[in-house]
Amino acid sequence: MIYLDNNSTTRVLPDILDAMLPYFSTAFFNTTTLAGALYDVARPLSEARERVAELIDCSAEEIILTSGATESNNWVLQSIARHSLRQTGKCHLVVSAIEHPSVLQVASYLAETEGRVEVDLAPVSCEGVIDLAALRDLIRPDTALVSVMLANNETGVIQPVAEAAALAKEINQDCLVHSDATQAVGKITLSLNDNLRDVDFLSLSGHKFHGPKGIGALFIRSGVDLAPYLYGGGQQGGARPGTENPALAAGIAKAAEIATMHLDDRRLESLRSSLEAALCALGVTVLGGGARRLPNTSLLLFEDLDSEMLIHRLAEADFATSSGSACTSGSDSPSHVVLAMGINYSSASGALRISLSHETTQNEVSEFIDVLKPLAQSLKKP
Amino acid sequence: MIYLDNNSTTRVLPDILDAMLPYFSTAFFNTTTLAGALYDVARPLSEARERVAELIDCSAEEIILTSGATESNNWVLQSIARHSLRQTGKCHLVVSAIEHPSVLQVASYLAETEGRVEVDLAPVSCEGVIDLAALRDLIRPDTALVSVMLANNETGVIQPVAEAAALAKEINQDCLVHSDATQAVGKITLSLNDNLRDVDFLSLSGHKFHGPKGIGALFIRSGVDLAPYLYGGGQQGGARPGTENPALAAGIAKAAEIATMHLDDRRLESLRSSLEAALCALGVTVLGGGARRLPNTSLLLFEDLDSEMLIHRLAEADFATSSGSACTSGSDSPSHVVLAMGINYSSASGALRISLSHETTQNEVSEFIDVLKPLAQSLKKP
Repeated sequence: MIYLDNNSTTRVLPDILDAMLPYFSTAFFNTTTLAGALYDVARPLSEARERVAELIDCSAEEIILTSGATESNNWVLQSIARHSLRQTGKCHLVVSAIEHPSVLQVASYLAETEGRVEVDLAPVSCEGVIDLAALRDLIRPDTALVSVMLANNETGVIQPVAEAAALAKEINQDCLVHSDATQAVGKITLSLNDNLRDVDFLSLSGHKFHGPKGIGALFIRSGVDLAPYLYGGGQQGGARPGTENPALAAGIAKAAEIATMHLDDRRLESLRSSLEAALCALGVTVLGGGARRLPNTSLLLFEDLDSEMLIHRLAEADFATSSGSACTSGSDSPSHVVLAMGINYSSASGALRISLSHETTQNEVSEFIDVLKPLAQSLKKP
Repeated sequence: MIYLDNNSTTRVLPDILDAMLPYFSTAFFNTTTLAGALYDVARPLSEARERVAELIDCSAEEIILTSGATESNNWVLQSIARHSLRQTGKCHLVVSAIEHPSVLQVASYLAETEGRVEVDLAPVSCEGVIDLAALRDLIRPDTALVSVMLANNETGVIQPVAEAAALAKEINQDCLVHSDATQAVGKITLSLNDNLRDVDFLSLSGHKFHGPKGIGALFIRSGVDLAPYLYGGGQQGGARPGTENPALAAGIAKAAEIATMHLDDRRLESLRSSLEAALCALGVTVLGGGARRLPNTSLLLFEDLDSEMLIHRLAEADFATSSGSACTSGSDSPSHVVLAMGINYSSASGALRISLSHETTQNEVSEFIDVLKPLAQSLKKP
């Protein structure tokens, strides 16, 4: 199978699996025990924090390991909302309209169950970029949290998070800023010490950059308070209890190390360009094509075509693609991301997402183009 | 190393690791995608639910996979408390005094941050068994949740959870009952369809019965409502979103299958008896020795001896043991479990926990006895 769906999940690379293996059946000890100390099973945990910190340019002490970005996102939104409710009796959140469900659904849940939580959705342009002027109008002196993703999982469009964060702090210096960077981490250079210095919390997941599923992280800026989401034993300084996981930590550590060598991958970007150029003639629109994007992602809108059918036919020909987010597939409604970009309901069902990895070859992309072109032609609605 | 600390964590058995391996680098797809469907990567997920359900005698539909028991415990306590606060403006919880920190600390957090949450701790007898008469006095007509662990992680003492649950329902038919069964699952026969039929929620972790770390489950009785703890994509019917983990699921499925063959292990029980008998002469007390216990666990109290020193010397001789819970080690205070049993502060520091697995051999136990006896003698305080 030629795998062109790397934004949904990635293959655990053999070197990464090799780094994990000793911790399942040999050095399997609990990090908090003496046997764990003798076999130094806490080492992969600190390596994970260090390698992830290098990948996003922050300090290792600012990294807390979690079960993944869904937990990280829930942690930030729920803890901040409850803290604000306790302190002020109310809470105002601003999130972008194109966030992942693990931000949007948390915000809806909070607004629905806690009458005193207000949520505003920041719109995006037709290129899928958050509208900073509209965002400025939504942020209030009492806004507790602004959450804007770093790169959209469907379009790959990189969001002006630094600008959004600066805006938030300008309007309310106590406003906290969160960015779900799950799709950006491991693909582009990020710096929490530099341009993202106004971001307080940042979420990520290992399995989006060839690490194992089940481990992610939350960056919490030094000096910023965030109540724990889980309570229990004293692991990770009490910030995130639960038996620590040396195997998965070794995996995300190695994955982060490998990812640093593939950031801002020009080869991927040119592979993607060749793909998009080849499809131009088919009347395909590249959604967000005019914006700054992740080098690996292309969301293609086919006119007069139901992409679900196309994806099935591509799968029969051994190509893995998708219509958008893996976390909303299964539902029949078009993507909220595509709709937020102003595409109408019927056209939105023609979206096909291609997401490459540094493992993707020129040959694979060429083969894909050769198969896709006639397939798309044959599936056009009359 | 002779490993006698299986209550802290267990080795992933080779067959279990083999069951996991295909899902890292080959069938690594996202369960919600077409590639995932073609490679049937959702199968380990349903197998995990089925095998775990068999292990605790419930229906597979009542099992939700989580990142482990810490998440499962937090989910139940936090969601029930918040629901009760929303419905009635207050919340009364009863938990036993010997719960794991992932129950006790959640209860403290709720009581401290939410002024309207009241928590009562049910005491235990000197044998470490929850006092049902005292429990009856604590449960009120407005009690929202009673949480009693199935078997204590330090003493191995099996708690009268069926009786506690029946009591709770007798006093308040709407009272919900939770049991943290993390140490019991995979060691003794449990039946949620039979004697535990009044239990609404039950937590467990795969790594306590030779499965991988990072995956556990929450049993939610069919018909009982529990608001999700995490919000996001539609995975697990929306009950527990986040990218599903076929590798870890395959691991817990195989671990549960193997564990069903080792429940109520008479051989382990007799190994443990031989160990305890051999140490009698040393003036050792078996904590909870008069109560029904897990077959694998022995908490030994040495008079006039600091067990931390003993554990270090045992480790030098290549035996892994512990002083109690892995999740509270690192702290210098004696175990809250031992203190709750009425042991005084200075004596409590003499506790040594031995926890066997079906992998433990007679030879290993004999060797251990031979090393422990002279060591314990030599370390006695003058």
